[in-house]
Amino acid sequence: MADDKKQLEAITPMEEDFAQWYTDVVKKAELTDYTSVKGCMVIRPAGYAIWELIRNQLDAAFKETGVQNVYLPMFIPESLLQKEKDHVEGFAPEVAWVTQGGLEPLQEKMCVRPTSETLFCDYYANTVHSYRDLPQVCNQWCSVVRWEKTTRPFLRSREFLWQEGHTAHATAEEAQERTEQMLNVYADFCENVLAIPVIKGRKSEKEKFAGAIATYTIEALMHDGKALQSGTSHNFGDGFAKAFNIQYTSKDNKLEYVHQTSWGMTTRLIGAVIMVHGDNSGLVLPPKVAPTQVVIVPIQQKKEGVLDKAFELKDQLKAFRVKVDDSEKSPGWKFAEHEMRGVPLRLEIGPRDIEAGKAVIVRRDNGEKTEISLDNLEATIGEMLDRIQKEMLERARAHREAHTYTATNYEEFVKIINEKPGFVKAMWCGDQACEDKVKEDTTATSRCMPFEQESISETCVCCGKPAKALMYWGKAY
Amino acid sequence: MADDKKQLEAITPMEEDFAQWYTDVVKKAELTDYTSVKGCMVIRPAGYAIWELIRNQLDAAFKETGVQNVYLPMFIPESLLQKEKDHVEGFAPEVAWVTQGGLEPLQEKMCVRPTSETLFCDYYANTVHSYRDLPQVCNQWCSVVRWEKTTRPFLRSREFLWQEGHTAHATAEEAQERTEQMLNVYADFCENVLAIPVIKGRKSEKEKFAGAIATYTIEALMHDGKALQSGTSHNFGDGFAKAFNIQYTSKDNKLEYVHQTSWGMTTRLIGAVIMVHGDNSGLVLPPKVAPTQVVIVPIQQKKEGVLDKAFELKDQLKAFRVKVDDSEKSPGWKFAEHEMRGVPLRLEIGPRDIEAGKAVIVRRDNGEKTEISLDNLEATIGEMLDRIQKEMLERARAHREAHTYTATNYEEFVKIINEKPGFVKAMWCGDQACEDKVKEDTTATSRCMPFEQESISETCVCCGKPAKALMYWGKAY
Repeated sequence: MADDKKQLEAITPMEEDFAQWYTDVVKKAELTDYTSVKGCMVIRPAGYAIWELIRNQLDAAFKETGVQNVYLPMFIPESLLQKEKDHVEGFAPEVAWVTQGGLEPLQEKMCVRPTSETLFCDYYANTVHSYRDLPQVCNQWCSVVRWEKTTRPFLRSREFLWQEGHTAHATAEEAQERTEQMLNVYADFCENVLAIPVIKGRKSEKEKFAGAIATYTIEALMHDGKALQSGTSHNFGDGFAKAFNIQYTSKDNKLEYVHQTSWGMTTRLIGAVIMVHGDNSGLVLPPKVAPTQVVIVPIQQKKEGVLDKAFELKDQLKAFRVKVDDSEKSPGWKFAEHEMRGVPLRLEIGPRDIEAGKAVIVRRDNGEKTEISLDNLEATIGEMLDRIQKEMLERARAHREAHTYTATNYEEFVKIINEKPGFVKAMWCGDQACEDKVKEDTTATSRCMPFEQESISETCVCCGKPAKALMYWGKAY
Repeated sequence: MADDKKQLEAITPMEEDFAQWYTDVVKKAELTDYTSVKGCMVIRPAGYAIWELIRNQLDAAFKETGVQNVYLPMFIPESLLQKEKDHVEGFAPEVAWVTQGGLEPLQEKMCVRPTSETLFCDYYANTVHSYRDLPQVCNQWCSVVRWEKTTRPFLRSREFLWQEGHTAHATAEEAQERTEQMLNVYADFCENVLAIPVIKGRKSEKEKFAGAIATYTIEALMHDGKALQSGTSHNFGDGFAKAFNIQYTSKDNKLEYVHQTSWGMTTRLIGAVIMVHGDNSGLVLPPKVAPTQVVIVPIQQKKEGVLDKAFELKDQLKAFRVKVDDSEKSPGWKFAEHEMRGVPLRLEIGPRDIEAGKAVIVRRDNGEKTEISLDNLEATIGEMLDRIQKEMLERARAHREAHTYTATNYEEFVKIINEKPGFVKAMWCGDQACEDKVKEDTTATSRCMPFEQESISETCVCCGKPAKALMYWGKAY
C-alpha cells in the first residue's frame, strides 16, 4: 500500500493549486508528454484514444447534417493569406513561416495553416460556378499551428488537433441557419457526450473571429470557476467571397456572391473534460468518451478459476469497452491506477464473489460501491453507465448554477468577479470601452450574449448607459 | 444524350495515353483539385471518402494486433533530425524548413516532418525505462511533407496523408517479427479490401529506407504494367536506439538498447486503386472502399410511385452504402456520372419494373446487366457485392500473371523490359553495380526479393556472377 499512497500523493490537491493539479493529472494519467519541440506535445495513447472517441462521435453528428470531409494543404502562400484584410491582421502575428523547400529558398514564403478560411475560399472559387454547386458543406480533421508564447497541454499549444467546417451558401439566410445549426450540434455534443453543460450565445464585436460578421460560441465553466470557450461558429457574410471572388450564377442567371460560415472544435475539449469532471484521485471520464468503460480487477488472481471468470465476464460485456487488468500489480495499485485514468466502472471479482455469483462494482464518479449479481450483467452495466453519464452532466450543471451570479452595479460586479469564481451575468451597453475597462479592472472578459436573454436591469453594469444585452462575464482559459 | 457523350469523350482512352487517362479520371471523378500551393492537392469529398474507408479498415486491422494511436508534433528541430546519420542524409535534401515563428526568426530552424522516426525516438527515450514498458507499438495518422520536384495527384505530392507505425521492442527477434507481421497486414489489406494482389519481399540495400537494416515491401502491378510500391515495413535494429539513447533495464537488471521498426501506407493507395481497376469509363471501385456501393437510378421518376419505390428500396438496403439519384438529370447522364465515379452497382427502377416486382442491375466492373427480383433484395445485393470484390481481385491477379516474365540472360531481360510492360523475374548477384546498370540501360529498378524464392538460373542476369537471389524488376511509379 505504500506504493499506492505514493502514486496518490503525487497529485497536488485541486483546492491547493488547480493549475498544478491539472498538470499532474495530465502527466499521471499519461495523456500527454513534453517534446523537444517547444510548445508542442505528444498526445499519448491514453489521450489520443479519448480524442478518437470525440472525433468519431462528432463526425457522425456532422454527417447527419450533410457534412462531407475533405483535406486541404497545410501551407498557405503569403499572398493568399493576405487577401482578406481583417483575417490577415488577426492571424499573421502568430503563424509559423516556411521559407525554404528542399535545398532552396522559396520564391514566396508560406505559413503553416493557423486556420483554413483562405484555402477553402481558393477551393470554392475554383469549383463553385452555378447555384447547382451550392451549398458546399465541407469539413476537415487536421492540425493547425499558432505561435503561442505560453502553452499548456490541450488548452493552448503551438500545434493542436481540430476540425474546421467551411461552408458556402446561395443566401445570407442559409448561411445564418448553418452557423446556428452547427453551434447547436456542438452544444448537444458537449452535453450528451462530454456531460458538459454549455451556454450558447454570441460573441461581442471585440471577441469575434478575424473576418467574421458574427461569431457564436459555447461557453463551459470549469471546476475552478473559470470559463472555457469550447467551440465557435462564424458567419462570414459575403466578405470572404468578395475578397476571393467566389461567385455563382443564380437560377435567374445573375452573378451572385456566396455567403460563408466556418466552425471548429479542438483537442481543448479534452482539457474541458479534465477540468469539469476530474477530482483529487485523477481523471473522471464520462462513459461515452472513456476508452475503457469497465475495468475488471481480479482479486487473488492466482487462485484457480479467478482469471478465467474475469475473462468470461469480459466476454459477456462485448457491448462495452472492457479491459481485464491481469498484471502482476497489487489490487490496491490497480485501483489507484484506473482511478487516475478515469475508468467509469471498476468490477472486482474474487473467489468468494464467484462462489456467491456476485461482484463488487465501484463507480469512479462518486465512489459508490455496490454488490451486484452476475446474472443479467450486461443490462446492469449498461444501466449503470447510462446513469453515470446522466448524473455527471447533472452534477456539472449544478456546479455551474451554483457558480453563476448576477450583478446590477459595478461595485458588486467587481467584488463578485474578484471573490467568487464563476460566471457573472450583467447588462451591457454594447460598447467596447466597457469590455476594456472590465478587463483592465478584473482580467475578466465578455464571454457571450446568451441566446436566452433576460433583463436584469435597464443599464450597463459598467458605464450606466442604457443596456443593450445581457452578457456573461468571467475569467477564462 | 449529347451531354452524356461529351462527358465520356472528355476522358483520354488509357491505351492512347495512360498518364493522361489517369489525370482525366482523377479530375472527372472529382477526387482532387489543384491549389495555389504548388505540388499540393485538395482531396475532394469523393476522394476523401475513399481514404476514410481505407483508414477505418486499416486502423481496425492494426488495433487487432495491439497497435495504439498517438499524435506527435509536425515539426522536427534540425538537431533532432541530425542525430541519425543515414536518416538525415536521406531526408534533409527534401524537407520544408520553418525559420520564423510569429514575428521573430527561430533560434533553431525546424523541418515539417517528412517521416517521424526522430520524434518517436525522442518520445521513447523519455518514456521507456524498464522491460515492463516494452513493447511500444504506436501509430499515427497524419500528413507529411517531402519537397518533390515533379508531382501527380495521390502518386507523388509535396504533402500527403499516411499512417506511420513506430515500435520499440526488447529483442531483435521481436522487432523482426513485428516488421514481417505488419507487412502481412498490409498485403492482406491490399488483397482483401482493395482487391489488389501484391508481391511481398525485401528491398535491396540500395532501395532500403534511410537508417534501416532491412526494408520489406509490397509491390503491385498497375494496368499499364508499371510497378507501384504500395507499403513498406522497416527493421531498424538498434541503430536509432543508439543514436537517441533509448535504453531499458532488463529483467536481470542490465541496461539494454531497444530494437525498433516502422511501417507506412499512404494516400498513394488511392492511385493504386485507380490504376489497377479503372477503365475507359472512369473509376472502378472495389465494394469495400466504395463510398456509394449501390446507386438507385429511378426511370421516369416523375411517374407516380417511382421515387417512393426507389427510397423504399434504399431503406431495405440499410446494410450497404446506398444512394438514390433523384436529381433532375437524364438517366443516361446519371449512368455516365456514376460510372465515372466507380459505383459498383447501379439499380434501375421504373414503372414497368415496379409492376413486375423486378429491377435492372448493372455491374460497374464488367458491365453485366441482369434483371433481379425485388424479393430478397438485401441478400441478392450482398452476394453481388461479394462476387464483385472477389472477381476484381481475380482479374487483377490474372492481369499481373499475364504480365510477369522471366529472363535468364541480359539481352532477353532488356528486350522484355523495353517491349513488354510488367514485372520481370530474374536472378541477381546482390551487387548494387548491377542494379545501377539495369537502371541506366532500361530505367527499370529492383522492386523486391520475394519471400517465395525460386531458382531460375545459377547466375546473375546482369553480370553473370553467381546468383544470390531471385529479384522482381520493373519500371515503377
